[in-house]
Amino acid sequence: MLHVGIVGGTGYTGSELLRLLLGHPGVAVSAVTSRAERGMAVCDLFPSLRGRLSLSFVEPTLEGLAGCDLVFFATPNGTAMKMVPDLLAAGTRVIDLAADFRLKDPASWERWYGQPHACPELLDEAVYGLPEFNRDRIRAARLVANPGCYPTAVTLGLVPLLEAGVIDPDWIVADVKSGVSGAGRKAELGLLMAEVGESFKAYGTGGHRHAPEIMQNLALFADRSVNLTFVPHLVPMVRGIQATLYARLTRADRQPHALFASRYAQEPFVDVMPRGSHPETRSVRGVNLCRIAVNEQPGGVVIVQSVIDNLVKGAAGQALQNMNLMFGLDETAGLISLPLSP
Amino acid sequence: MLHVGIVGGTGYTGSELLRLLLGHPGVAVSAVTSRAERGMAVCDLFPSLRGRLSLSFVEPTLEGLAGCDLVFFATPNGTAMKMVPDLLAAGTRVIDLAADFRLKDPASWERWYGQPHACPELLDEAVYGLPEFNRDRIRAARLVANPGCYPTAVTLGLVPLLEAGVIDPDWIVADVKSGVSGAGRKAELGLLMAEVGESFKAYGTGGHRHAPEIMQNLALFADRSVNLTFVPHLVPMVRGIQATLYARLTRADRQPHALFASRYAQEPFVDVMPRGSHPETRSVRGVNLCRIAVNEQPGGVVIVQSVIDNLVKGAAGQALQNMNLMFGLDETAGLISLPLSP
Amino acid sequence: MLHVGIVGGTGYTGSELLRLLLGHPGVAVSAVTSRAERGMAVCDLFPSLRGRLSLSFVEPTLEGLAGCDLVFFATPNGTAMKMVPDLLAAGTRVIDLAADFRLKDPASWERWYGQPHACPELLDEAVYGLPEFNRDRIRAARLVANPGCYPTAVTLGLVPLLEAGVIDPDWIVADVKSGVSGAGRKAELGLLMAEVGESFKAYGTGGHRHAPEIMQNLALFADRSVNLTFVPHLVPMVRGIQATLYARLTRADRQPHALFASRYAQEPFVDVMPRGSHPETRSVRGVNLCRIAVNEQPGGVVIVQSVIDNLVKGAAGQALQNMNLMFGLDETAGLISLPLSP
Amino acid sequence: MLHVGIVGGTGYTGSELLRLLLGHPGVAVSAVTSRAERGMAVCDLFPSLRGRLSLSFVEPTLEGLAGCDLVFFATPNGTAMKMVPDLLAAGTRVIDLAADFRLKDPASWERWYGQPHACPELLDEAVYGLPEFNRDRIRAARLVANPGCYPTAVTLGLVPLLEAGVIDPDWIVADVKSGVSGAGRKAELGLLMAEVGESFKAYGTGGHRHAPEIMQNLALFADRSVNLTFVPHLVPMVRGIQATLYARLTRADRQPHALFASRYAQEPFVDVMPRGSHPETRSVRGVNLCRIAVNEQPGGVVIVQSVIDNLVKGAAGQALQNMNLMFGLDETAGLISLPLSP
Repeated sequence: MLHVGIVGGTGYTGSELLRLLLGHPGVAVSAVTSRAERGMAVCDLFPSLRGRLSLSFVEPTLEGLAGCDLVFFATPNGTAMKMVPDLLAAGTRVIDLAADFRLKDPASWERWYGQPHACPELLDEAVYGLPEFNRDRIRAARLVANPGCYPTAVTLGLVPLLEAGVIDPDWIVADVKSGVSGAGRKAELGLLMAEVGESFKAYGTGGHRHAPEIMQNLALFADRSVNLTFVPHLVPMVRGIQATLYARLTRADRQPHALFASRYAQEPFVDVMPRGSHPETRSVRGVNLCRIAVNEQPGGVVIVQSVIDNLVKGAAGQALQNMNLMFGLDETAGLISLPLSP
Repeated sequence: MLHVGIVGGTGYTGSELLRLLLGHPGVAVSAVTSRAERGMAVCDLFPSLRGRLSLSFVEPTLEGLAGCDLVFFATPNGTAMKMVPDLLAAGTRVIDLAADFRLKDPASWERWYGQPHACPELLDEAVYGLPEFNRDRIRAARLVANPGCYPTAVTLGLVPLLEAGVIDPDWIVADVKSGVSGAGRKAELGLLMAEVGESFKAYGTGGHRHAPEIMQNLALFADRSVNLTFVPHLVPMVRGIQATLYARLTRADRQPHALFASRYAQEPFVDVMPRGSHPETRSVRGVNLCRIAVNEQPGGVVIVQSVIDNLVKGAAGQALQNMNLMFGLDETAGLISLPLSP
Repeated sequence: MLHVGIVGGTGYTGSELLRLLLGHPGVAVSAVTSRAERGMAVCDLFPSLRGRLSLSFVEPTLEGLAGCDLVFFATPNGTAMKMVPDLLAAGTRVIDLAADFRLKDPASWERWYGQPHACPELLDEAVYGLPEFNRDRIRAARLVANPGCYPTAVTLGLVPLLEAGVIDPDWIVADVKSGVSGAGRKAELGLLMAEVGESFKAYGTGGHRHAPEIMQNLALFADRSVNLTFVPHLVPMVRGIQATLYARLTRADRQPHALFASRYAQEPFVDVMPRGSHPETRSVRGVNLCRIAVNEQPGGVVIVQSVIDNLVKGAAGQALQNMNLMFGLDETAGLISLPLSP
Repeated sequence: MLHVGIVGGTGYTGSELLRLLLGHPGVAVSAVTSRAERGMAVCDLFPSLRGRLSLSFVEPTLEGLAGCDLVFFATPNGTAMKMVPDLLAAGTRVIDLAADFRLKDPASWERWYGQPHACPELLDEAVYGLPEFNRDRIRAARLVANPGCYPTAVTLGLVPLLEAGVIDPDWIVADVKSGVSGAGRKAELGLLMAEVGESFKAYGTGGHRHAPEIMQNLALFADRSVNLTFVPHLVPMVRGIQATLYARLTRADRQPHALFASRYAQEPFVDVMPRGSHPETRSVRGVNLCRIAVNEQPGGVVIVQSVIDNLVKGAAGQALQNMNLMFGLDETAGLISLPLSP
């Protein structure tokens, strides 16, 4: 039995980790931390877990966590990096669901997250936790940087084209749309239902923190820099991300759809749908799955649609997938439930 | 391995049965029928099931179904009663998720459902599938009438009070609210998102088909007729039922909350929450669970809140629970996942 | 031209007042105050007003406001009472959209609002601003207490029955449902779309501040105390209140529907719908209107459905109606637009 | 007083026309037709209009309509073209809110709408009713083709750039998102709230009927053909369209934002917001207004956001604007209400 801890258990990523971990046959949750809610029963904050978990929130301490085989950080950006070196030194492996270890360049991290990085020496070691491209390195990792929700949807939807060298990397458009849970469980006016319900808008046209993470991914597979125009939007729903990706084909001899079908044929958590499909976010609700459709329009334009549940394949589910890889478990353990639709 | 068939697999109850059955370790789905969609792959209609089910819809025939150990009817009202006698004669057991076998009085059935009953001789044998009150009879049943969604929420929320004889049966109010999936997957103007989204209304104040079913239940436990005022409402959301139940206490010496806590202490799928609670429908989203809160207001009024997922504890989940009982399986098999919240 | 000011212009009640006042032919908005947003252009906070209003938020001061003919308070409870005496002394009339002057008993006010009342001597003078019952007194009032949203819906839906003495005042049930804008524009976790979207729940079963206000109203018209069981619920939508009201008839010789039709025949802002109707909240979206349906169920039960837009007839629209009365304008001026449906 | 008729008054465009026309000071609605609902009071179908309109639906006949100064067609595509020649001959002017007269090329019309055009000889005369670009021709028109909702949002958001010749017409991306009322009031499974609520998807990647209409517009102003990639999406909300438009700048010496500000400076129904803005659909809810934001991203990419209410500036409101122009009324008459937000 694997013993795991969760640091920062009061947000949506934390509660989703708990939902999934409690259904995993080989894991025991040893500790869930929260400074603010210390002493409160976890089930009192999350009644959906009543009857299935008897833990209370505890203070995050090295002593309390070092006994775990693995610690998940579901904390705000900038928190994990302060505790991770000590945990690793104590022999505890770490999956960080925040952004602390996603960017390889500490200067870029500081620019986007507004503070110097606390342990830049770990950035090289940290493995970017996208199993579809990094499976073997994840297996051996001490420290996994779990990808952001937008980067997961966009990267899975573009890399097969970039790897094959069939699209023009000089201009790719990613128009992405997210449900409101993507913004986290924070008391902000802009997230009130009376503000975002029954309305739709873009945000972050001036630059979003996930853009450099995506471009770092894309450059790796294109083997050159990629000019990505990335615009996120807020959808009046709770869960789900849909990305519509636009690129121009540079080679007429390769079928885009076939590239995806072949690239992901063995992937348990990527579903390439038939041509002409339009995946709905509800078709992945609650599950660790990315569904992709690949279509073309006149003028040599390829349009990729990619949908995930932002809290599962975009966060907690992907973290479990990484955990399974790191500890030699079946990669799909705890991740085989079916989507809730409708 | 239990072999089951589903008659009428194109509605929300049918697809929810599939979602749950595909996660059940001891069941194989042998046939899913639909006259209208015959020949179509089930996954093409329900992309959320892609990769997990290779069946296509078939014509419903006695030959095709009689090989099943159990057949679920997820059909419109009035369909099951035409096939059930032959299936039973062939040795196949049946759970009907429609209303055909819920009312014991065929005249009442005809009044509410607009046609004579096709096999009134089976009404006595049919067991009302509310395990919390009928567990032993369900175990032995050939034919189970799976309760309606409203009746499940209201009955679970009132019977402990009626059994104990502590409320006035001369006037009980059930103000119930349902998400739109409760109306089924039907092309009707009144169910369009542009009609019901961002709006709220009551309906059926003149009488709803679920009222006689509820009153039949309540009378059984009160051992007299009960005067219930039942008003359903439509909530602009997809899943979930919330019932607020109002009654007047006739005895001051019994604590209503304690009656519920005691009555349901051993029930795996009823959660009596602490005093002062307000259960949310999302706290049972996707799971076979009824959460109940019991509070009081001045003047000797008891207020019971009861929430279920209309498609799970109100339909397909309860049907699995009944199936488990009928076939001697663990009652909770296939029903232990956690709610999707948020 | 009437000159008006708004104290507390950053909430939903304030912005709705602005929307309506800017469409009123005889009113000029002279000042909109906000301590927190002082100096900010009102349109920068509320882009929906762009191009129609050039004011910026100012500090609320007696000097700045005393020049107005009328000041609306759209402030949190307990704010108006500190400024109103000085404004009245300066000759400025006041409509308070908060609760400060709604309850006649200062002890009750202190109990429900958690602080002593700052000017209990004004409670008698303050006129409760429900024009359908208080029209003449409103015309002459210096100080109007604008009713709460729930009290407006419930009072309009019960008083004709109580006035006629045809229902049992010993037990009336008000099951009321509100969109989330009713909770105001406040950065609270419980109001996030990720918390309340796609879910439904009751709240305040232990007692809600609007209950004593409603009971004060009902007692006045019943000429005795009324035992009301009041339970509010939160609907996953932005605007609208629906109240379902249940009472038992004590006289069989009076038709409930006829009582409503007669009582409200001349009212411009109450619509008594035909028997069998089920008013939707969207049918009053954006307008100063209460739609009512009156139906009966067996056992002598009358069921009244009452719907309003919580921000219009439940707040800002009713305030304009009161303003029109106070200043001798056409009661419907600025209030004749049609509902936005769908 | 202008006398107008509405053919096809049972859809959302028809009811929205009624809402707006009933608030217009210079118009009387003489007839509303519907074959299916003939004889029914309009208010019984649309309770939101109760008390404001006494008409019943009538059969659409030339005799009944020819007495009108103007007839609006709010019918399915292909209906207006069968009646318009006779109406024009009778001296009645026409605004068609469907697609019958939008495309200049009858072959293209037949390809996209699946039937031959019934009066191709009128296609040249018909004036495309986008007042911001066609104001003078609309004033003189007998027959106005009211633009589609997507074409309104996209055309207003691209033409200033094309007119100025500052973007590359070889590839422009229009990622557009619509609330469900855009699909009309039709009993289709795909529009049920249980199908589209709490989910998001693209549709029509294989080609949408509005694409040729948009490209016809853009080519006109670019003075050459434009390669537009157009992908519509369905948002789980009732009203509103948001278009995010992506193009590459070909000239560095012209500021995109300034081009819009200048082009629309005198337009009463286009609001160019400050740089850095993100217009929400709710900021135009219920009003005849297009709000536009213009931002840039590295690599010479201009991003235009354009929001309208699909039923107002995208349909009925624009039709009133055209009517005002055609009959010499103030262009803003009946169109000055403020958006409903929240």
